Amino acid sequence: MIKTDILIIGAGPTGLFTVFEAGLLKLKCHLIDALPQAGGQCSEIYPKKPIYDIPGFPEVLAGDLVENLMKQIEPFQPGFTLGERADTIEKLEDGSFIVTTEKGTKHHAPIVAIAGGLGSFEPRKPPIPNLLDFEDKGVEYIIRDPELYRNKNVIISGGGDSALDWSIFLTDVAKSVTLIHRRNEFRGALDSVEKVQELKNIGKIELITPAEVIGLVGNNGLEEVVIKQGAAIFNRECDHFIPLFGLSPKLGPIADWGLEIEKNAIKVDNTLDYQTNIPGIYAIGDVNTYPGKLKLILCGFHEATLMCQSAYQRIFPDKRYVMKYTTVGGVEGFDGSKKEAPKAVIKSID
Amino acid sequence: MIKTDILIIGAGPTGLFTVFEAGLLKLKCHLIDALPQAGGQCSEIYPKKPIYDIPGFPEVLAGDLVENLMKQIEPFQPGFTLGERADTIEKLEDGSFIVTTEKGTKHHAPIVAIAGGLGSFEPRKPPIPNLLDFEDKGVEYIIRDPELYRNKNVIISGGGDSALDWSIFLTDVAKSVTLIHRRNEFRGALDSVEKVQELKNIGKIELITPAEVIGLVGNNGLEEVVIKQGAAIFNRECDHFIPLFGLSPKLGPIADWGLEIEKNAIKVDNTLDYQTNIPGIYAIGDVNTYPGKLKLILCGFHEATLMCQSAYQRIFPDKRYVMKYTTVGGVEGFDGSKKEAPKAVIKSID
Ligand SMILES: Cc1cc2nc3c(=O)[nH]c(=O)nc-3n(C[C@H](O)[C@H](O)[C@H](O)COP(=O)(O)OP(=O)(O)OC[C@H]3O[C@@H](n4cnc5c(N)ncnc54)[C@H](O)[C@@H]3O)c2cc1C
Ligand SMILES: Cc1cc2nc3c(=O)[nH]c(=O)nc-3n(C[C@H](O)[C@H](O)[C@H](O)COP(=O)(O)OP(=O)(O)OC[C@H]3O[C@@H](n4cnc5c(N)ncnc54)[C@H](O)[C@@H]3O)c2cc1C
Repeated sequence: MIKTDILIIGAGPTGLFTVFEAGLLKLKCHLIDALPQAGGQCSEIYPKKPIYDIPGFPEVLAGDLVENLMKQIEPFQPGFTLGERADTIEKLEDGSFIVTTEKGTKHHAPIVAIAGGLGSFEPRKPPIPNLLDFEDKGVEYIIRDPELYRNKNVIISGGGDSALDWSIFLTDVAKSVTLIHRRNEFRGALDSVEKVQELKNIGKIELITPAEVIGLVGNNGLEEVVIKQGAAIFNRECDHFIPLFGLSPKLGPIADWGLEIEKNAIKVDNTLDYQTNIPGIYAIGDVNTYPGKLKLILCGFHEATLMCQSAYQRIFPDKRYVMKYTTVGGVEGFDGSKKEAPKAVIKSID
Repeated sequence: MIKTDILIIGAGPTGLFTVFEAGLLKLKCHLIDALPQAGGQCSEIYPKKPIYDIPGFPEVLAGDLVENLMKQIEPFQPGFTLGERADTIEKLEDGSFIVTTEKGTKHHAPIVAIAGGLGSFEPRKPPIPNLLDFEDKGVEYIIRDPELYRNKNVIISGGGDSALDWSIFLTDVAKSVTLIHRRNEFRGALDSVEKVQELKNIGKIELITPAEVIGLVGNNGLEEVVIKQGAAIFNRECDHFIPLFGLSPKLGPIADWGLEIEKNAIKVDNTLDYQTNIPGIYAIGDVNTYPGKLKLILCGFHEATLMCQSAYQRIFPDKRYVMKYTTVGGVEGFDGSKKEAPKAVIKSID
């Protein structure tokens, strides 16, 4: 059982910054995310694209923002359960919660902060009849650890940025990389498309277009895929088939936790602390809704900050927290680190 | 008469970021600030100190944050009335407002956003009987333009960072710099104190401590100050006397605008858009109060953002604004500039 003060569901920008604000209040955090990495939409959908409306950044790549946030929260040593989806919640008699993932990992905390964004990202799956039989037996929809593909024969399917970028990346890792797409045209960053063209020209990526994978073959795991190209149908040996058709977010199991839901988002009390209808459960960032809500990163930061103050009062009903500016009080990490402004000296001049 | 869409009172971080959010909505902004420069508390009180809780910045100097914000809003060409205090407001029949400064500058806008922080900074004045007679005739409490002191004899009084830093700065500009403080000990950044010691040693700053200026002498302007050092009292010629005893913020004239005030701050509707009790006037950042309010920079950013949406609806009651992510829609400046993410291409590979 993982124990923490604030259990955060969703490691997007909102969830990450919560760790910082909680840390200032000496509260520990643990994050669960269905994706294999932190950063939510920023990391998964547009890591290399610029954002222009993060205050203080005339321009910042989404991936760099996440990196900065990770660095900012480092002193507060957050725990992570990555690649697992929070599935069920149970409220104990003392008012605390146990949240269990689909893989059975259990987390216990007095406070749950849902920062689930648009929901947990679920892969769009191609309509191949026996696809489910091969999941995690050679078929993966998300690349969690590229090492899995070392010296393996990999077939990637898809025509967007993920398919292009992973094809490029895996040429350095895999024994062979084949890219299959139902059109000749790919849609992605210009340099990615050009790089694939180049790798194709020197024989490092095999391209099969316009074509589709229509079947999977294998006994205890994937051995071959069946490819349809025009009128031709043929088999191709491989160890892994990775269909990259995008991820679509689903509020998913959280929708069944007894929370008030409106427009696919969780209703919260924006007049005070972004608490849900279940005391002790908050919802912050893209996942919540209230009058005037904007699904913007900077709003999630504010919501996380107010939420942490309320969480503190819930955990310590008798304590009165007196806020200190970070500039004045510094930042004391749980790792023993301390950042602080250089102190003024009082010194005579003679 | 200066005309704009949103008249912002206070050019602190909150006021500055408002320009950006308004700009995304194609609304123009003009800012009034009593201080000679933008940045509010960050620029005036602690420009060289680090802030640790701006999301995405593990550490940023307050002055750098302001510089970044100025750069971020540049495409939206904000107007500035600096060094003037907004004194009176008048509501016209059409619901728009005229705001006049103590110097008589008039501003006309359909929306007023008060981002006045803790109030307009007023200098703490030393108890010298005829001080007021010499204001702007040789006595300044704030250095607006260092060029005023070129080749002049300047006497600075005070024992903190401002007195130290301006003494250092003006040695390159003024004919002579004299620093008077009622103790031998100064309180400031170590390197400032050391630099003053060094400049004193080489004769570029004259130090008179422990001492006080107790009188001013002159006909049409300042000619001499009267200094008391221990039992001795003597006069010293000078062109300028600059007492730097700190600024203290005063809500000031805004308190008489008919707004609901609580705890020296303006009550706003945090359930929706941070509007005050007077429709069309909003209050954002440190200057407002509502249940759970935190006087933090990141909260001002969020409040400004929601406020702009409401202002847009007020100005264009019949239009429906559809928010676009900056990453997707880019940022179109009023100066014709356009920032946008590199577009995806659709391109065949063969
Ligand atoms: C192309 C694009 C451009 C954008 N541009 C901008 C912009 O310019 N400015 C801006 O402010 N915003 C922009 N956004 C929106 C911005 O990315 C979101 O507002 C932000 O990511 C929300 O952060 P979050 O932490 O609330 O949620 P998310 O980033 O969505 O993160 C939520 C995380 O929770 C996880 N999760 C959900 N449910 C579960 C569960 N049950 N178990 C485990 N994990 C779960 C998800 O896997 C996800 O990682 C853009 C979005 C896109 C897609
Ligand atoms: C030493 C110190 C350390 C701090 N550390 C942190 C920190 O670590 N993190 C954090 O989030 N915050 C910190 N703060 C607080 C932070 O600086 C404020 O929250 C922030 O400056 C508020 O921004 P604002 O734009 O709302 O107001 P301000 O920065 O106060 O700006 C308001 C401006 O309005 C002007 N004004 C007011 N009335 C009038 C008028 N009638 N006419 C013309 N102009 C007017 C003032 O002159 C001023 O320039 C710190 C503050 C101090 C003093």
